[in-house]
Amino acid sequence: MSASHPRFDILGIGNAIVDVVAPVEESFITHHDLRKGAMTLIDADSAERLYAAMPPGIESSGGSVANSCAVAAQLGARVAYIGKVADDQLGNVFRHDIKAAGVHFPTPPLLGGAPTARCLISVTPDGQRTMNTFLGACVELGPDAIDAALVADCAITYLEGYLFDPPHAQAAFLRAAELAHKAGRRVALSLSDAFCVHRHREAFRALVRDHVDILFANETEITALYESNNWMDAADHVARDVGIAALTLGADGSMIIEGYTRISVPAHATTVVDTTGAGDAFAAGFLAAHTAHRRLSESAALGSLAAAYAIAQYGARPPVERLRRLITGL
Amino acid sequence: MSASHPRFDILGIGNAIVDVVAPVEESFITHHDLRKGAMTLIDADSAERLYAAMPPGIESSGGSVANSCAVAAQLGARVAYIGKVADDQLGNVFRHDIKAAGVHFPTPPLLGGAPTARCLISVTPDGQRTMNTFLGACVELGPDAIDAALVADCAITYLEGYLFDPPHAQAAFLRAAELAHKAGRRVALSLSDAFCVHRHREAFRALVRDHVDILFANETEITALYESNNWMDAADHVARDVGIAALTLGADGSMIIEGYTRISVPAHATTVVDTTGAGDAFAAGFLAAHTAHRRLSESAALGSLAAAYAIAQYGARPPVERLRRLITGL
Repeated sequence: MSASHPRFDILGIGNAIVDVVAPVEESFITHHDLRKGAMTLIDADSAERLYAAMPPGIESSGGSVANSCAVAAQLGARVAYIGKVADDQLGNVFRHDIKAAGVHFPTPPLLGGAPTARCLISVTPDGQRTMNTFLGACVELGPDAIDAALVADCAITYLEGYLFDPPHAQAAFLRAAELAHKAGRRVALSLSDAFCVHRHREAFRALVRDHVDILFANETEITALYESNNWMDAADHVARDVGIAALTLGADGSMIIEGYTRISVPAHATTVVDTTGAGDAFAAGFLAAHTAHRRLSESAALGSLAAAYAIAQYGARPPVERLRRLITGL
Repeated sequence: MSASHPRFDILGIGNAIVDVVAPVEESFITHHDLRKGAMTLIDADSAERLYAAMPPGIESSGGSVANSCAVAAQLGARVAYIGKVADDQLGNVFRHDIKAAGVHFPTPPLLGGAPTARCLISVTPDGQRTMNTFLGACVELGPDAIDAALVADCAITYLEGYLFDPPHAQAAFLRAAELAHKAGRRVALSLSDAFCVHRHREAFRALVRDHVDILFANETEITALYESNNWMDAADHVARDVGIAALTLGADGSMIIEGYTRISVPAHATTVVDTTGAGDAFAAGFLAAHTAHRRLSESAALGSLAAAYAIAQYGARPPVERLRRLITGL
């Protein structure tokens, strides 16, 4: 099927989560036996216990691909999002924030089930974030939430690796990828987290090889996927699997891989306050520029800029006006 | 009755509110006909409409006296708080945050009634905050919420002028003041907001004259109370009404008035990001030092320092560790 001009540039599908962010000392991580820098799934009881131990926090909308969608929309992309919140106060906050960022969000709330998902984020003085997620209503996201007409009307369907954790989302994921390709569109994936990759390595490998056109990963995620000793070996591997891979390398910037081409783009110098959302913002900048037909190097540069802004503040979604000023200044 | 050594330094009583803070342009204020810099009461429907128009926000615990309590506890004071939240997600956030700040919070949640109060705070580029509050569960705070034994066990009962807005809180207010004085304790009041003073001027005048030992007010609030042309006339008036008055004068610092004594304390220079909570933090620093038997000038200096930290960031409660570092550095 030939692809007509799509209504949206990006359709994000992911776990719809509200973040609770609080600054902690290093000792908090060891005392509560948390896996530093990673995303760990916890149940409702553990979430309650950990929250009780956390210092006063700040709540804001999160979710990896949802963050990317909000930032990409503010960068001028036309964006839609599919994700499951409950019909509760935090669900209303999530819905408000993503709509206020300019994102089309058609998924109806879950009624009478688990509450809206939350991610307890402990930020240590080094700016690292340690995430503990209670998935709540996200476990109810299944293939029936994927609107075929909407997928067909989006240039890129962007999925998060975290979707492999809730039970029905993998099926939703595959359905979205198949619908996208059937409509002549492309599929992007973020590997999300090295532990998530470990949990679902074989499924991820098959998916990346068979269904993914654009892959986002950081160093630990891409080496976890291919069980490589270093990211350069993994880079050679990924070049054979996907059309475009965007590897983020922290302070070393990013490496875009397209066949035999390697494009190295530096990171933007910034003060590290909280690395929450750095990868999400990179993907947002990259996809916003890429769907606007900018070159790969320019797309990666906008990704770096957005990531730098996310890192310099608490929380995953940089303030609207600062990002807009940033774009105007480009 | 002679006062024994109290268990708590400060008992705060106020409207228990969760803030929703979002940066807006100046045009947002005029377009939505908001009263810039003031606190305006709105009903549930108006709150929903205004929230729908606001950009993506950040949620955090608020409430004027609750903010003061959280900051004072982090400054080392022993603090209790009485205020009404609902048994909902935002109520849980409020309860978590104030307890995590080290504040004793015995008030049970409201069951099956209105939701937890929220304050929609629009922050313009000049750092001014414009507040629109839906009082929700706060309207159920009445005299029965005031525990006589707890009031008797607190050196200072600290009340907010905003308590004059919900219907039963004025009675709670008077009961707390009477119980405090009967137990040989003192009563502090913040006038909160000039429009709130206009709404309840006669009741405020009588209260200040008959029941208040320590009064906090800014320039517009104190001139509104006495219908004075300038704050110096109002200062002469307030000196006859209360034992100690702490007048905050923005960038001009503060003036402490005790009988014929006037102590002028400069403001701390800082970058203005968001003035939300500046007055609350000033009262926190002042009361924490004052109940630790520091001199009035030192108490005002700690108030200025805490206010500067509140102003330099979004939201009303400065981060714990920064405040602690601040104190260590004193």
